[in-house]
Amino acid sequence: MTDIPKNHPRYESLMAREKIVSGVERGLTSRQGLTAQGRGEAFDYLLGEKTIPSAYHAETVAVCLLLLAEKPVISVNGNAAALVPKELVKLAELTGSVLEVNLFHRTPERVSKIVAELKKYGASCVLGENAEPLLNLDHERAKVERNGIFSADVVFVPLEDGDRCKALAEMEKLVVTVDLNPLSRTAQTAHVSIVDNLTRAIQNMIDLVPDLVLLSESELWDFVEQYDNKMILADALEEMKEHLTEKQNELMGIESPKEPTPEEIEEMEKRAEKRKNLMMRGADLMME
Amino acid sequence: MTDIPKNHPRYESLMAREKIVSGVERGLTSRQGLTAQGRGEAFDYLLGEKTIPSAYHAETVAVCLLLLAEKPVISVNGNAAALVPKELVKLAELTGSVLEVNLFHRTPERVSKIVAELKKYGASCVLGENAEPLLNLDHERAKVERNGIFSADVVFVPLEDGDRCKALAEMEKLVVTVDLNPLSRTAQTAHVSIVDNLTRAIQNMIDLVPDLVLLSESELWDFVEQYDNKMILADALEEMKEHLTEKQNELMGIESPKEPTPEEIEEMEKRAEKRKNLMMRGADLMME
Repeated sequence: MTDIPKNHPRYESLMAREKIVSGVERGLTSRQGLTAQGRGEAFDYLLGEKTIPSAYHAETVAVCLLLLAEKPVISVNGNAAALVPKELVKLAELTGSVLEVNLFHRTPERVSKIVAELKKYGASCVLGENAEPLLNLDHERAKVERNGIFSADVVFVPLEDGDRCKALAEMEKLVVTVDLNPLSRTAQTAHVSIVDNLTRAIQNMIDLVPDLVLLSESELWDFVEQYDNKMILADALEEMKEHLTEKQNELMGIESPKEPTPEEIEEMEKRAEKRKNLMMRGADLMME
Repeated sequence: MTDIPKNHPRYESLMAREKIVSGVERGLTSRQGLTAQGRGEAFDYLLGEKTIPSAYHAETVAVCLLLLAEKPVISVNGNAAALVPKELVKLAELTGSVLEVNLFHRTPERVSKIVAELKKYGASCVLGENAEPLLNLDHERAKVERNGIFSADVVFVPLEDGDRCKALAEMEKLVVTVDLNPLSRTAQTAHVSIVDNLTRAIQNMIDLVPDLVLLSESELWDFVEQYDNKMILADALEEMKEHLTEKQNELMGIESPKEPTPEEIEEMEKRAEKRKNLMMRGADLMME
């Protein structure tokens, strides 16, 4: 890997890119995975490369669903395997989830390499090598394991393709994804769309488990029932717009944004109220 | 190349991606070029995958500068060579510019392959194989040809790295770039930053030549003098924000945006006026 100084302002982002390049070199990640990483970088930049509050909320609900599920499955693709193999194994262990390798550009070699990579990090069982064409999609894209994703009640499919996410959501499953583009078909068809960098998202989810695992089922369901995915996506778009406005002001040498109009203040208050309601439970939990 | 149906809603974008993958396979493009393409895709998506009026204006000024220059040079990197080799040769021919292969991840093999690729499309002379470390940068990044980019008065460097764009702008050169990220250091340090997809930008520039070539030098200079790069960048950010708002409204099921406030109307009129001034000459020209 290229040597990147730890104090580089974009260290995390550059390290992630290097991990994907290394994933391609090791045969874990497809070349198309590099393009996907680039798209992610652009959207993450627009979010200020941080976990926004609404994404943290989605991450909380995602963990609740994994804990509530009868048969939770975590899907692992080539980019996820290159970026966060250790964390995926850890999250599966903490939430009692099954790991399944699930590739868009599927080859038996890549599946086996990713299975081996996850086992290297301590996974005892990884599905994916016995996948059958069970989804309502063309042959290669349709492959999942009968005892894995096919029969799951909750699937966590970070960085998933739009068509495949839709096919899963149309089955009787709750679909959780991680996608930095709130406008992607994946983000728009999943039930819980985490608009965050996968590396940050998965670490947040791991950190959330010890607190959430103490709650009762009905308390976990409260989180899920309060959740509104459309609002979470709209909030991510709002954050991106705010970031663009900030940058625009910097560019034009405007020190502070103009005074908001009464309508804008009302709008801001409405948003703050909505956010407060959504975050309240999460915040309470974090304060304990 | 993967077979993509022509009626696919994102045909152009997918074809461009395939061209970059093919460029990597043929040794023209670096792997990092795939990530860069992905970043571009994200920003292009935010622009609605179309040439916005301010970008068209920047393209007009770019062609004026190439026509006015004593020694215009068009720099070609691995992504540009994969995406628009024929068009680069055509633009060089129409504007009397010199072509120079100029790589961030430079290897002699890649330089030679790109030289050969451009010659395949009819270029009679392509510089780059005799580059020396002449820029104020570390050794490999500093390489340009003494009779090419080093002595140019106008350089067209689409998809350039931030440091290298800055090094060129600090020399006595007018620097024109194409960059879909209006916030990149490249876009912010070049004199003319075309915020557009390279494939669209280069075609627009080729189409502009026959009209602009008929103008006098002083008419061409008028275009250049009226040009404000900061305004062009701010306008691109504005377009992205408008696009995000549109998508946000779609998501939330809001049919039409709320009535603008008087302040917003005033702001919109100011922007329209500024745009009108800038576009007037271009529009006149197009109507002829």
